[in-house]
Amino acid sequence: MVNQKYLDKAEVLIEALPYIQRFNRKIIVVKYGGSAMTDEKLTRSVIQDVVLLKLVGFKPIIVHGGGKEISRWSEKLGIKPQFIDGIRVTDESTMEVAEMILNKVNKKLVAQIESLGVKAVGISGKDGQLLKTQRKYSNGKDIGYVGEVKSVCPKILQNLLEDDFLPVVCPIGMDDEYHSYNVNADDAACALAKAMSAEKLAFLTDMEGVYKDPKNPKSLISELHVREIDNLISNGNVGGGMIPKLLDCQDAIRHHVSRVHILDGRIPHCLLLEIFTNKGIGTAILGDEEKRFYEDK
Amino acid sequence: MVNQKYLDKAEVLIEALPYIQRFNRKIIVVKYGGSAMTDEKLTRSVIQDVVLLKLVGFKPIIVHGGGKEISRWSEKLGIKPQFIDGIRVTDESTMEVAEMILNKVNKKLVAQIESLGVKAVGISGKDGQLLKTQRKYSNGKDIGYVGEVKSVCPKILQNLLEDDFLPVVCPIGMDDEYHSYNVNADDAACALAKAMSAEKLAFLTDMEGVYKDPKNPKSLISELHVREIDNLISNGNVGGGMIPKLLDCQDAIRHHVSRVHILDGRIPHCLLLEIFTNKGIGTAILGDEEKRFYEDK
Amino acid sequence: MVNQKYLDKAEVLIEALPYIQRFNRKIIVVKYGGSAMTDEKLTRSVIQDVVLLKLVGFKPIIVHGGGKEISRWSEKLGIKPQFIDGIRVTDESTMEVAEMILNKVNKKLVAQIESLGVKAVGISGKDGQLLKTQRKYSNGKDIGYVGEVKSVCPKILQNLLEDDFLPVVCPIGMDDEYHSYNVNADDAACALAKAMSAEKLAFLTDMEGVYKDPKNPKSLISELHVREIDNLISNGNVGGGMIPKLLDCQDAIRHHVSRVHILDGRIPHCLLLEIFTNKGIGTAILGDEEKRFYEDK
Amino acid sequence: MVNQKYLDKAEVLIEALPYIQRFNRKIIVVKYGGSAMTDEKLTRSVIQDVVLLKLVGFKPIIVHGGGKEISRWSEKLGIKPQFIDGIRVTDESTMEVAEMILNKVNKKLVAQIESLGVKAVGISGKDGQLLKTQRKYSNGKDIGYVGEVKSVCPKILQNLLEDDFLPVVCPIGMDDEYHSYNVNADDAACALAKAMSAEKLAFLTDMEGVYKDPKNPKSLISELHVREIDNLISNGNVGGGMIPKLLDCQDAIRHHVSRVHILDGRIPHCLLLEIFTNKGIGTAILGDEEKRFYEDK
Amino acid sequence: MVNQKYLDKAEVLIEALPYIQRFNRKIIVVKYGGSAMTDEKLTRSVIQDVVLLKLVGFKPIIVHGGGKEISRWSEKLGIKPQFIDGIRVTDESTMEVAEMILNKVNKKLVAQIESLGVKAVGISGKDGQLLKTQRKYSNGKDIGYVGEVKSVCPKILQNLLEDDFLPVVCPIGMDDEYHSYNVNADDAACALAKAMSAEKLAFLTDMEGVYKDPKNPKSLISELHVREIDNLISNGNVGGGMIPKLLDCQDAIRHHVSRVHILDGRIPHCLLLEIFTNKGIGTAILGDEEKRFYEDK
Amino acid sequence: MVNQKYLDKAEVLIEALPYIQRFNRKIIVVKYGGSAMTDEKLTRSVIQDVVLLKLVGFKPIIVHGGGKEISRWSEKLGIKPQFIDGIRVTDESTMEVAEMILNKVNKKLVAQIESLGVKAVGISGKDGQLLKTQRKYSNGKDIGYVGEVKSVCPKILQNLLEDDFLPVVCPIGMDDEYHSYNVNADDAACALAKAMSAEKLAFLTDMEGVYKDPKNPKSLISELHVREIDNLISNGNVGGGMIPKLLDCQDAIRHHVSRVHILDGRIPHCLLLEIFTNKGIGTAILGDEEKRFYEDK
Repeated sequence: MVNQKYLDKAEVLIEALPYIQRFNRKIIVVKYGGSAMTDEKLTRSVIQDVVLLKLVGFKPIIVHGGGKEISRWSEKLGIKPQFIDGIRVTDESTMEVAEMILNKVNKKLVAQIESLGVKAVGISGKDGQLLKTQRKYSNGKDIGYVGEVKSVCPKILQNLLEDDFLPVVCPIGMDDEYHSYNVNADDAACALAKAMSAEKLAFLTDMEGVYKDPKNPKSLISELHVREIDNLISNGNVGGGMIPKLLDCQDAIRHHVSRVHILDGRIPHCLLLEIFTNKGIGTAILGDEEKRFYEDK
Repeated sequence: MVNQKYLDKAEVLIEALPYIQRFNRKIIVVKYGGSAMTDEKLTRSVIQDVVLLKLVGFKPIIVHGGGKEISRWSEKLGIKPQFIDGIRVTDESTMEVAEMILNKVNKKLVAQIESLGVKAVGISGKDGQLLKTQRKYSNGKDIGYVGEVKSVCPKILQNLLEDDFLPVVCPIGMDDEYHSYNVNADDAACALAKAMSAEKLAFLTDMEGVYKDPKNPKSLISELHVREIDNLISNGNVGGGMIPKLLDCQDAIRHHVSRVHILDGRIPHCLLLEIFTNKGIGTAILGDEEKRFYEDK
Repeated sequence: MVNQKYLDKAEVLIEALPYIQRFNRKIIVVKYGGSAMTDEKLTRSVIQDVVLLKLVGFKPIIVHGGGKEISRWSEKLGIKPQFIDGIRVTDESTMEVAEMILNKVNKKLVAQIESLGVKAVGISGKDGQLLKTQRKYSNGKDIGYVGEVKSVCPKILQNLLEDDFLPVVCPIGMDDEYHSYNVNADDAACALAKAMSAEKLAFLTDMEGVYKDPKNPKSLISELHVREIDNLISNGNVGGGMIPKLLDCQDAIRHHVSRVHILDGRIPHCLLLEIFTNKGIGTAILGDEEKRFYEDK
Repeated sequence: MVNQKYLDKAEVLIEALPYIQRFNRKIIVVKYGGSAMTDEKLTRSVIQDVVLLKLVGFKPIIVHGGGKEISRWSEKLGIKPQFIDGIRVTDESTMEVAEMILNKVNKKLVAQIESLGVKAVGISGKDGQLLKTQRKYSNGKDIGYVGEVKSVCPKILQNLLEDDFLPVVCPIGMDDEYHSYNVNADDAACALAKAMSAEKLAFLTDMEGVYKDPKNPKSLISELHVREIDNLISNGNVGGGMIPKLLDCQDAIRHHVSRVHILDGRIPHCLLLEIFTNKGIGTAILGDEEKRFYEDK
Repeated sequence: MVNQKYLDKAEVLIEALPYIQRFNRKIIVVKYGGSAMTDEKLTRSVIQDVVLLKLVGFKPIIVHGGGKEISRWSEKLGIKPQFIDGIRVTDESTMEVAEMILNKVNKKLVAQIESLGVKAVGISGKDGQLLKTQRKYSNGKDIGYVGEVKSVCPKILQNLLEDDFLPVVCPIGMDDEYHSYNVNADDAACALAKAMSAEKLAFLTDMEGVYKDPKNPKSLISELHVREIDNLISNGNVGGGMIPKLLDCQDAIRHHVSRVHILDGRIPHCLLLEIFTNKGIGTAILGDEEKRFYEDK
Repeated sequence: MVNQKYLDKAEVLIEALPYIQRFNRKIIVVKYGGSAMTDEKLTRSVIQDVVLLKLVGFKPIIVHGGGKEISRWSEKLGIKPQFIDGIRVTDESTMEVAEMILNKVNKKLVAQIESLGVKAVGISGKDGQLLKTQRKYSNGKDIGYVGEVKSVCPKILQNLLEDDFLPVVCPIGMDDEYHSYNVNADDAACALAKAMSAEKLAFLTDMEGVYKDPKNPKSLISELHVREIDNLISNGNVGGGMIPKLLDCQDAIRHHVSRVHILDGRIPHCLLLEIFTNKGIGTAILGDEEKRFYEDK
């Protein structure tokens, strides 16, 4: 007789059926950063998840950060960090280092994905003019080559997806003078999700999700309607780091991304768990258009 | 913290990665018959398996039998079965009933597949002249409208796969005078696997597989090289029913089907278990070309 | 010198020119039923006509009935017919028989078409979810698995036409629970003509056409404007059987089918005569959009 | 009751079925010249035939001459014809007139075809470098700008057929210096039939066909095997004008044109009669590859 | 060291960069007539220019006249010209000659272009029904087969451009009875530019361009806004021959042609000079949509 | 009158015609390194040349080095260079820096190309597994992560060219364990030229070309047949640095690259001068297949 263990395995695969079906050929943009990027085992689990999503029919796009690596190398190179309003001032030489490091991280991800048998292509927002940026000011103060996305030219991403590659994007763009700018990876992921009409946008973070009351760990919100975001922010219920992320979520949902996921990147396979089971990992943000698919399961 | 159960689920999905990768866009012909067809729960598990194979990127084709239903209805209609050499003589009226019943079974499978969200199309070997047949004689004796496959015109199957349908084929063909003939479902599946250059051919049977010594239940052969088949047959080690099946296996492997599986259709999800895990269910037949993929896992 | 007979033949072909030109690559849905289906010689003439239409550039689709065969086999199987308001009550077992018989008829047509060298594919409304149905009530009374068309998913028909097959459709659909329903063949033909944006819809009937005065055989209407249908019905000038057919005509014309033909299927080659000559066989129904093409000839 | 006349018409259309089927999407090159070109009624019948062939699925290409018109205009312009070995010497000014007249004839044919509703495009062998020629000598004597086909660049014809136009070709080519040369229309038609892998090549002539004995009008050969041509010529059984035509036939058949027809262009609709009936008009030349299709009818 | 001459050459090529870039894959219709057509050296320079435009990525279409040749041949043939309001009356025989001559000119251009290695196809407005015309009256007086463009069916031009041919069009069209009409080449070029959504329309003329004051050779207008045309005409500042040309310009600009050039065809390579340098040759007419591209260079 | 200067400009463009024609849609691989990379003005001239080549119809691919930058940054980071046989030993941290720097250079080139209006995409040999490498030993000694090309998977380059991007490749590959390896840029360029069936391969160097006698500056070889290379090397006539380059040339020519150019990258626009004029800059290496195109000009 066949061992129960095997039958259980088959059941797990069968359970994934409706999710695989629902998201077939849909684009999912994964913002990859935080612990999931520095812990080797977590890294491997994220790569495996993304590769699996691709193989079962999704069209994933990875947008990655690299903050800690940039700091580490800047230090090595004797570049002293300067901050204005808590944001790192990105002068010419910092920008140069940032670009080098982000590209290094980018190609390392490419190699890791390819070692699992899927062909990846690492690009930055400069390739094919993917990300056009303009200088971003912090409360009116110049903080250097920090850019905000002005426009997206998604042709290169579309072509790579059509040609069956898995695109890995590093968040550097150019302004009208073709100078490089560092772009916040969350913002870049959000801009690409909008431009590519993604079905999903997932942020891998170092938090469990969004809380009703940040002091109460039991108040984690599983599902948040886009309308509730303004309230949550104005009530002072969410901390500083979460606010721009929530504004990105709002922006994405309003531009027809069906669902945004704020996931705890510290949990192995959090992407698979969120997408293929009805056990919510973190917080899902959705709008009116989203048919309550997960609830029906 | 996330429950271990969920992490285990994620692991199962991750384990399926190399198999999904390997068989992406490959054609698998599934001969569906026996208990797996009469037991409702088993039927559902087979349908789920095939639908999952399709969703993760395979191109499955179902070829089904319907022997028991034909007998049941023949009886209802007062047609007295006649046998020569243990083969049912198929006169005009038996053929008429057989065609009706097989088409009924065919459309029922279509409905079951569609209820899981995949579009299926049920055809017979007459559609688009898929199966051209000629009369088959049993030791020189005429047994009526029993056909053997003379040629295959695979265009309709190719078109349906391109158009993303799941084809369900009932094993009836036509001779040069456009008369209907009943074809053995194993033979039809084998002919289609060859004509479609399938990667795999899987027979769902009511046996556990092939035994070295049929009297010793522990002698089940997990993996059989195509070269060993002749020996096995001439040694008298395999029973009557298994011989034509093994000859089909031999034929398929020699025409570049990579691997043929003789599966125990009585085990739920036997298709998934065989394809997605390295736990062999039944007997796999393979030739020299097949790289020992499963062994390496 | 060349015999006059041959020159006359050439003339007939030349006369067909404007019609062939006009209807090149247009879809024509042919509802095939009645005597044309039971008389062998008439059957052959219909098949020849449809095959010729295909070869000279039309895209014909056949929708067939099978009422008499169903009655004959129900009787054989000892199923006692029940009627409500003159409509056969279709219980589970009647539906089962109906489906078997219609599929048998379907595949027989496929074989006949293929014997003339054109590749046909026989499908039912269940394949590719072509016909989604809902239960139809007769004056509020439940008459079983008799369905009315709720929606059409024409992809399978479109794909078969693109792939150069001649589709033969048997009028069985599924409800939302994937149960089979018998659909009136006229209604199915009408629904498919609308969904496929057919140029023409032709009903082969056992009548000469529509009469102004059913008692006066000389009052046959050659051409009927869609606006006149309501009047004709309310005046009591058309008999019971014709009313639903005329409502289908009305429905089709209003959904941009250019012309509906009610033909006398008892006349050999009635389809060719109606389409390729300006001798009207039966009654043509047309709307305002239809340019008076035939009149100009 | 329907008039017998109409039923007969239907029968004629049905009789055309196997021919339409056989030659579907096949290329037929028609050399159009002689009486069929000067008699207005015959012209119309040829145009109708070619248009019908196109509409029922052939891909016809017309190659036309224009000898009589050239003579008429040369005279008008006071150009005195010179002959060597019975071939008109084509000096610079004769070539100029010939090109003007052939193009005039070409565009007139285009207009006539379009008046029947089919889009035609008139080109010469200079367009797209369709016909590259070299000077032809008559027994070593220079006869001016008379060319023989050196190579064919069929791209423009292939593109026009793909784009659904009916190409009309006037037989003028260019040499390596891009000077215009007059090419014999039979030779041009033969060269194009070979380069386009035509199924058929038809010469409209002013003769009834090829005779075994030119003095005996009853000795018309209906079907001639390509092997018999050499014999026929060496026996002196065929007249001077027919010899180059027969050599073209031989050349075409040996380059895989299935059948060449030498037709009597003075018979209205001779093309249709030859192709759509088994009554041979003129002489058909065929090789071993040609399956005896007409005989089986 | 490399000679300065070569470095200068490289600079010229580099200077052409922005122009090549800007007009990549854009359609430019060139009306070719006047001295540029009768002087052999100028002819060669125009052909070279057009061929270069094609090779660097433009999609040029040539529309040519042939007035002088028509007069010369009419005379030769003893046709006495008749004029009404200064326009040649085009009777049947004049039309016949005109068509012959224009086609002769057309094929000569084709040969010249092909001698430079680009494949050209010469068509008239009759091919593929490119130009449908109606009779044009001069102040109500019938001047024969002189047509104005009623509609354009651009399919043949689109197909030729897609298939990478350079189309050469002679300005003859047909009316609804399929009779040939002579069309003014400027008007034909304008109609085709509009129908093909051309980027540019260039008239090669025998004038330097448009003058503010025709008596003052220094008053040449380099750039004219479409709004100024009406004024210029009503002020009597432009001569008779220029008025219809300016109305064509106005018409073209208003139908989204970006820029119309009235060039001095007597200057060698005037097309290249106008398009690839910021030295204006003649007068450019433009509307509001045109971004002042040349000015920025 | 038009200034002679402008007419001269037109002449230069016209002179480029045959070269543009000849190399239309051909692939040219440009190895970009040396002074042309460090001098800003030369950089700009190379970028302009490549952009122009693309715009007039070539399909250029850039492969770049970055040696000097790598040294500069290694120093900055306190990595002490080690050499074996004059080759830098590439340990883990050197490889890390090399990858960062080469990617930085890569993206800078992308930005510069895009500032000229052409869309570029910068990839490394890791993307899409373009370059698979294996460890290269120097006389049997391990010199670290220095790779030689084992195989090329050109799909990503083919796709980028099809999608109209200009690919910029940095010469880093991966071994079977997906570890990064530095590849000599000349070797990478040669491997890609072979795999892409390039028409041309051009090396921008800091030498004038190949000399018969390195001591005699007048002995520069303009054109070298591939057969002469072995001789040249064995005679000791070429210096150390040139030998591997010449072996690459030999390899490329033998794999059907038509012509390899060793250019003096210190001359502005050396690429244009070499390709668009018959003035040889440096040395061209060619085989038997190359038709002596330049000589005929």
